[in-house]
Amino acid sequence: MNMIDIILKKRDGGKLSQAEIQYFVRGYTEGSIPDYQASALLMAFFFRGIDREEIFELTNAMRYSGDTVDLSDIRGIKVDKHSTGGVGDKTTLITAPLAAACGVPVAKMSGRGLGFTGGTVDKLESIPGFRTTLEPEEFLRQVNETGIALIGQTAHITPADKKIYALRDVTGTVENLGLIASSIMSKKLAAGSDAIVLDVKCGSGAFMEDQQRAAQLGQIMCEIGVAAGKRTVAVITDMSQPLGKAVGNSLEVAEAIETLRGRGPEDITQLSLKLAGIMIYLGGRVKTEAEGQIMAQQALHSGAGLEKLKNLIIRQGGKGEVIDHPELLPEASMKREIVAGSSGFVQAIDAKAVGLASQHTGAGRLTKEDAVDLSAGILLRKKVGDKVSRGECLAVVYGNNKNKLTSAQKEAEKAFSIGKEKVEKPQLIKNILGL
Amino acid sequence: MNMIDIILKKRDGGKLSQAEIQYFVRGYTEGSIPDYQASALLMAFFFRGIDREEIFELTNAMRYSGDTVDLSDIRGIKVDKHSTGGVGDKTTLITAPLAAACGVPVAKMSGRGLGFTGGTVDKLESIPGFRTTLEPEEFLRQVNETGIALIGQTAHITPADKKIYALRDVTGTVENLGLIASSIMSKKLAAGSDAIVLDVKCGSGAFMEDQQRAAQLGQIMCEIGVAAGKRTVAVITDMSQPLGKAVGNSLEVAEAIETLRGRGPEDITQLSLKLAGIMIYLGGRVKTEAEGQIMAQQALHSGAGLEKLKNLIIRQGGKGEVIDHPELLPEASMKREIVAGSSGFVQAIDAKAVGLASQHTGAGRLTKEDAVDLSAGILLRKKVGDKVSRGECLAVVYGNNKNKLTSAQKEAEKAFSIGKEKVEKPQLIKNILGL
Repeated sequence: MNMIDIILKKRDGGKLSQAEIQYFVRGYTEGSIPDYQASALLMAFFFRGIDREEIFELTNAMRYSGDTVDLSDIRGIKVDKHSTGGVGDKTTLITAPLAAACGVPVAKMSGRGLGFTGGTVDKLESIPGFRTTLEPEEFLRQVNETGIALIGQTAHITPADKKIYALRDVTGTVENLGLIASSIMSKKLAAGSDAIVLDVKCGSGAFMEDQQRAAQLGQIMCEIGVAAGKRTVAVITDMSQPLGKAVGNSLEVAEAIETLRGRGPEDITQLSLKLAGIMIYLGGRVKTEAEGQIMAQQALHSGAGLEKLKNLIIRQGGKGEVIDHPELLPEASMKREIVAGSSGFVQAIDAKAVGLASQHTGAGRLTKEDAVDLSAGILLRKKVGDKVSRGECLAVVYGNNKNKLTSAQKEAEKAFSIGKEKVEKPQLIKNILGL
Repeated sequence: MNMIDIILKKRDGGKLSQAEIQYFVRGYTEGSIPDYQASALLMAFFFRGIDREEIFELTNAMRYSGDTVDLSDIRGIKVDKHSTGGVGDKTTLITAPLAAACGVPVAKMSGRGLGFTGGTVDKLESIPGFRTTLEPEEFLRQVNETGIALIGQTAHITPADKKIYALRDVTGTVENLGLIASSIMSKKLAAGSDAIVLDVKCGSGAFMEDQQRAAQLGQIMCEIGVAAGKRTVAVITDMSQPLGKAVGNSLEVAEAIETLRGRGPEDITQLSLKLAGIMIYLGGRVKTEAEGQIMAQQALHSGAGLEKLKNLIIRQGGKGEVIDHPELLPEASMKREIVAGSSGFVQAIDAKAVGLASQHTGAGRLTKEDAVDLSAGILLRKKVGDKVSRGECLAVVYGNNKNKLTSAQKEAEKAFSIGKEKVEKPQLIKNILGL
């Protein structure tokens, strides 16, 4: 077997065998297949497509390219949750404690973000003292004892995916649903849970702008999950405007706390409950998804979810007091207001523009090596459909650097469209697949 | 401008501008654009195609990526000749002296071969003492004084083409007519002649098996030449069986001498005259191509072509005596006969199989670093259409290593098909474009 023949086969429309896909993934991961051959194959995949069996094999080869997590020592059905990423998406901080409070063991590894804000791990690290690294035994013991642990991804999970994704990123071969799906699912499968809930975002702030393509992606990921013997549900959700009102790291932690207190924005509350309900259902705690929703709501209203988050923070070394005193979270030294230039209704808040503004504040990374400003970000005062008067505050931009703040402010101003017509709030949950 | 955008543009079916193509060629040549991005773009070219203007720009960018040869100090219309390569193709050794004998200045740079036999430079080096490296002034002076010089390609001609071709070779992106045409023509244009005659081979021993595709390639190359202001003619010729009877380095030199003496095989004689006639015509020595043919024939029959070759050899330090004493050329120490297993007519001699056999003898290179055995090769005793009796010699394999000879013999045996039916000799010259 050699790589040129594999490239030629795919280039000419052939279907790669399990052995050929494994040969490529192994060889590329260990370095015997050079970047330039891998990128030629990826471009051939882009043009020729990748069929279901090839997707399953690719996912599998990447899943087993490094360490895999063994969660079998944790009692119960472990349910993982993944978001394809968006602006203001702090659902994990709300959903995971809610599910755990309802008896679903959550042994979750999250990533750091590259882009608009940090990832879940960065957000958690804005809580003073919070440790996102646990030894494997400590991780398992904590889930068994408390029902939840949230840590950073270990370095040795799916190295093949890391390498292939980095290459796709610089060779114009990202936008293939099969390759995207296998990248996400290889990590999820390696992470060892028994069931998976996927939040697939669509809209300007999402990787996938188009709802139909997001649904196709969700569909493929569900099929990969099922083929691997895991119940998998994909929820297709709106990301045309930011989720909730907080965008940034400590700002989002504060909003998550507010939401678990029952005082969060409507959309983030609704989505977190939906995802938690599905997790509870997949985790076998109830017989129907509807019952899962009810149980999640009870955990929210009773404060059990908030209590679970507090316990999690304390158990992982963080300051539990932030729950009652969010002012203990890092706070930015400067802020700027975005005000309405005219009166009317908010027609749209371009999630991508808000995301870029957040990045400009320092809340997000441009390269892996960048540090994240945990206190920076944006708080929206208005959301789509809200009435505003000329001069009224639309959003506040937070940061610690004057120049950054100025450019963030400019970017954030572009995000808002105000018009005379009344506007419907966008439908948040578009579609649920795999239930 | 950045390479990812260029890849995406081509991937999505766009047309690259002059600036974008130059950016790619320059960046890749100097190393600022990595292999993996170049291979992704080349694969996108493979799928999306490359239009005429893109081909012209790519050719031009590669043409000027290194040194170009200035032949303006040579009087007269300089005509270059190029073959896309085949088995037993020693036409340059015959055509160039014939054209030069008719007053067409030939300032030719040739390559070494990778494949079945060595290239023209290797063949010339089988003449004891022959120097294939001349300083630029020496090269020009020799052409002005003697009408001909044949040397190896200098290292600094079209480095972009060298690098891109090497990458295409290992990334499954060779087979695109536009890329092939621009690769060949960039070198020809950099070599500085005023007009170009291309011998485009088709058949099993050629790069292009299919006649129609060979004609398309010829057509594109003519268009590139004309766009660059050079008269360009492409002759599409048969390479289903080897050209002439000799395959190897010194064996081919001996056959070239025989041919210039008027005693060569019919096909190599016919093709060499045809190419020389076109060179004479393009060189402005006659008014019509037909007159060019007559003049070339006269140079053959008068011995003027042979005399020109002898002078060339002596002028470049070689032993002129080889003309009258071909036994002074390197001779192999061992030989093996291929005999007919049955009586009948030779139906086919697979040029590729003969080429591989030649490679097995050591006459060709597998990698750039390999040394070529100048005395090794194959002499055919029969050609397609010839009558043979069982046990009669079909070919003799020459070499200096028993194992190599054995595997070459096996390969050569596969080349011959013998059957009862009478067979027409294949048409040698299929088509002439650009006249």
